[in-house]
Amino acid sequence: MTDTYDPARTAVLLVDPFNDFLSEGGKAWPRLERMAKEIGLLDNLRSVVASARETGVRMVFVPHRRWQEGDYKTWTHPNPTQRQIQELHTFARGSWGGEFHPDLQPQAGDVVAQEHWAQSGFANTDLDLQLKQHGITHVAVVGLLANTCIESTGHYAMELGYHVTLVRDATAAFLPEMMHAAHELNGPTYAHAVVTTGELVTAFEQAGP
Amino acid sequence: MTDTYDPARTAVLLVDPFNDFLSEGGKAWPRLERMAKEIGLLDNLRSVVASARETGVRMVFVPHRRWQEGDYKTWTHPNPTQRQIQELHTFARGSWGGEFHPDLQPQAGDVVAQEHWAQSGFANTDLDLQLKQHGITHVAVVGLLANTCIESTGHYAMELGYHVTLVRDATAAFLPEMMHAAHELNGPTYAHAVVTTGELVTAFEQAGP
Amino acid sequence: MTDTYDPARTAVLLVDPFNDFLSEGGKAWPRLERMAKEIGLLDNLRSVVASARETGVRMVFVPHRRWQEGDYKTWTHPNPTQRQIQELHTFARGSWGGEFHPDLQPQAGDVVAQEHWAQSGFANTDLDLQLKQHGITHVAVVGLLANTCIESTGHYAMELGYHVTLVRDATAAFLPEMMHAAHELNGPTYAHAVVTTGELVTAFEQAGP
Amino acid sequence: MTDTYDPARTAVLLVDPFNDFLSEGGKAWPRLERMAKEIGLLDNLRSVVASARETGVRMVFVPHRRWQEGDYKTWTHPNPTQRQIQELHTFARGSWGGEFHPDLQPQAGDVVAQEHWAQSGFANTDLDLQLKQHGITHVAVVGLLANTCIESTGHYAMELGYHVTLVRDATAAFLPEMMHAAHELNGPTYAHAVVTTGELVTAFEQAGP
Repeated sequence: MTDTYDPARTAVLLVDPFNDFLSEGGKAWPRLERMAKEIGLLDNLRSVVASARETGVRMVFVPHRRWQEGDYKTWTHPNPTQRQIQELHTFARGSWGGEFHPDLQPQAGDVVAQEHWAQSGFANTDLDLQLKQHGITHVAVVGLLANTCIESTGHYAMELGYHVTLVRDATAAFLPEMMHAAHELNGPTYAHAVVTTGELVTAFEQAGP
Repeated sequence: MTDTYDPARTAVLLVDPFNDFLSEGGKAWPRLERMAKEIGLLDNLRSVVASARETGVRMVFVPHRRWQEGDYKTWTHPNPTQRQIQELHTFARGSWGGEFHPDLQPQAGDVVAQEHWAQSGFANTDLDLQLKQHGITHVAVVGLLANTCIESTGHYAMELGYHVTLVRDATAAFLPEMMHAAHELNGPTYAHAVVTTGELVTAFEQAGP
Repeated sequence: MTDTYDPARTAVLLVDPFNDFLSEGGKAWPRLERMAKEIGLLDNLRSVVASARETGVRMVFVPHRRWQEGDYKTWTHPNPTQRQIQELHTFARGSWGGEFHPDLQPQAGDVVAQEHWAQSGFANTDLDLQLKQHGITHVAVVGLLANTCIESTGHYAMELGYHVTLVRDATAAFLPEMMHAAHELNGPTYAHAVVTTGELVTAFEQAGP
Repeated sequence: MTDTYDPARTAVLLVDPFNDFLSEGGKAWPRLERMAKEIGLLDNLRSVVASARETGVRMVFVPHRRWQEGDYKTWTHPNPTQRQIQELHTFARGSWGGEFHPDLQPQAGDVVAQEHWAQSGFANTDLDLQLKQHGITHVAVVGLLANTCIESTGHYAMELGYHVTLVRDATAAFLPEMMHAAHELNGPTYAHAVVTTGELVTAFEQAGP
């Protein structure tokens, strides 16, 4: 791996680490459980976060809109995923499912971006501003889902001029072919690096303080 | 006035109608009081909102970031206004000053955009998305301050492709020369119409349902 | 199909219809030829354009940056596709490969957006402004490639608040699994409709003047 | 002046340095001539550019859309300035007035951003991307006009997270009160520094290589 991660200029974008995605009892957990366990998703997310904190890489939380009463009702055309959220109340504000996983909590000095309405953590939020105001030029995008929010957030990051790293086993999707699409078909066209958690942690340590 | 305001495609953007700006005892009220009273600002804002509700024009609230502990502390270069807010805690979250004026409260069906960090209600927020999802093509921008948030929000609206109307007496500024700059020097270069509250209300009634 | 396409509010976004993609002798044609012929890509693109012109749907051309000497040389981190373009000079400015296919040429009244540097026709261009200034709320995204520029442009359109239609056989990709990813895995999560050319043409005719 | 300008992270944004603005015989020159001469505008622009080149600060050209046949004709609501351009053909493509002033020409390694349609050099262009891909975090905005394109470009830069410097005598406007508005009323609310050409050149030299 030739890419280097100056901790003063690098951030981990942790996208949608909600209980509804990551915890037993979460609304989307049944669809993710098998893959998440197979790749050790939660352990890998813990490793990425721990490594970022140790090496001084900025942690940035990138949460989806927590559903609340009234959402989408007056919109002319919510997208299919939003229509589903409207029914299922995924990531509901004030609910356990809409809280971050207990092991993936913000700490002082972390950035928590404004909530995004659809798939890209940059679209219609302050994420780009927050990254600039913290001097960030390189992002590693982890969390859920590999072929929707992670791909879109990573893709927007590239369009906005950031150096983008995807992490194969620090994300998951509902189906193996979605992971394949994210990391073998689409990722290599726009991301500057596609690595494993182990490789990312090693790279953080080599660059770190 | 030749501009027409189809209620299905028009929104009033009500920017920063906080007690800190508009109410006796508000942190910025002393600097605004004289001009606000002179032009009848609060009455005019009430008229614009009432007219919008009667004619079916969409009301959109465009709030500034409510200051909260930690804001700006890790930023590399907050702007001068943000540094001032950091000291004065203007529009503090959870405080009376950070609440909307009691006569300017959102109702069901209104849009409340995400909070903006600086001057433009569009920058780093979901305002453009919300307008599109409500079919809006024309905006009238009212509230505070004429030469900062109103001008910036109006200007961004124009850059984004909206038809923009400024309302001379439904905004205010700290100094008369700032009003002059907003409505006589800069506004006419980018806004499609610069009107009075009376003219806007008449136009809404003529177009309305 | 329940989606309707008011011609006054609908545009076809024709992405990257360059000779390098679509014509015998084009630089990327060898990688696309098999799939393009199999699905009748060029005929379908001709049909979509003809139908748009007949029914009054706005044609919008969305071209990739034509490579020119100096491009990317001073950039800190071009993405993998851009590094490839830097070597191959794909869509070179002034070259035949960088011209639109002879059957897919702009006419008076069409919009030609500014060139995009990466995958989304909206990123870093005037496309959103142009659509707003032409009253567009609904877009059908066709052209090349299904899993890169089409997916990204469609995805951005959704994030920006547009109603988005993908057209299965008016696009192509280098591999069948890329088409599958674009239309079966990712498209249904964000696009409001995924249709065939025939279905789109019928819908245009039903809505048209 | 406490602001420092690391040449690796600083750019001069030179906005609209067209003959139509800056040269005898230019279409807008008669309205600018008096102020431009009074403050030594052209000499100051030459100094800023020369200083940037000597110290390794990146030069970025930020041109307005060159008017061409057809512009704005199909737009639903061009703004007042655009309607004026439509009549006067200011900065016409292919004309002398639409060329950069002979002393303010791009050189190899400079960036020339895509043309902007209205006032902000960032809106609907690749300027933000180009700055990120060149590692820029600090911008000094010079050129024309102080209260329109310079103010808007500077303001957008701030909203996007850049450190923004205005230069009092490296810009001009049609009226003295417009300069006053730009530098005394509005600039201090959003810009991180408002300096003179002399101060900027000194600061560049102190930081430079």
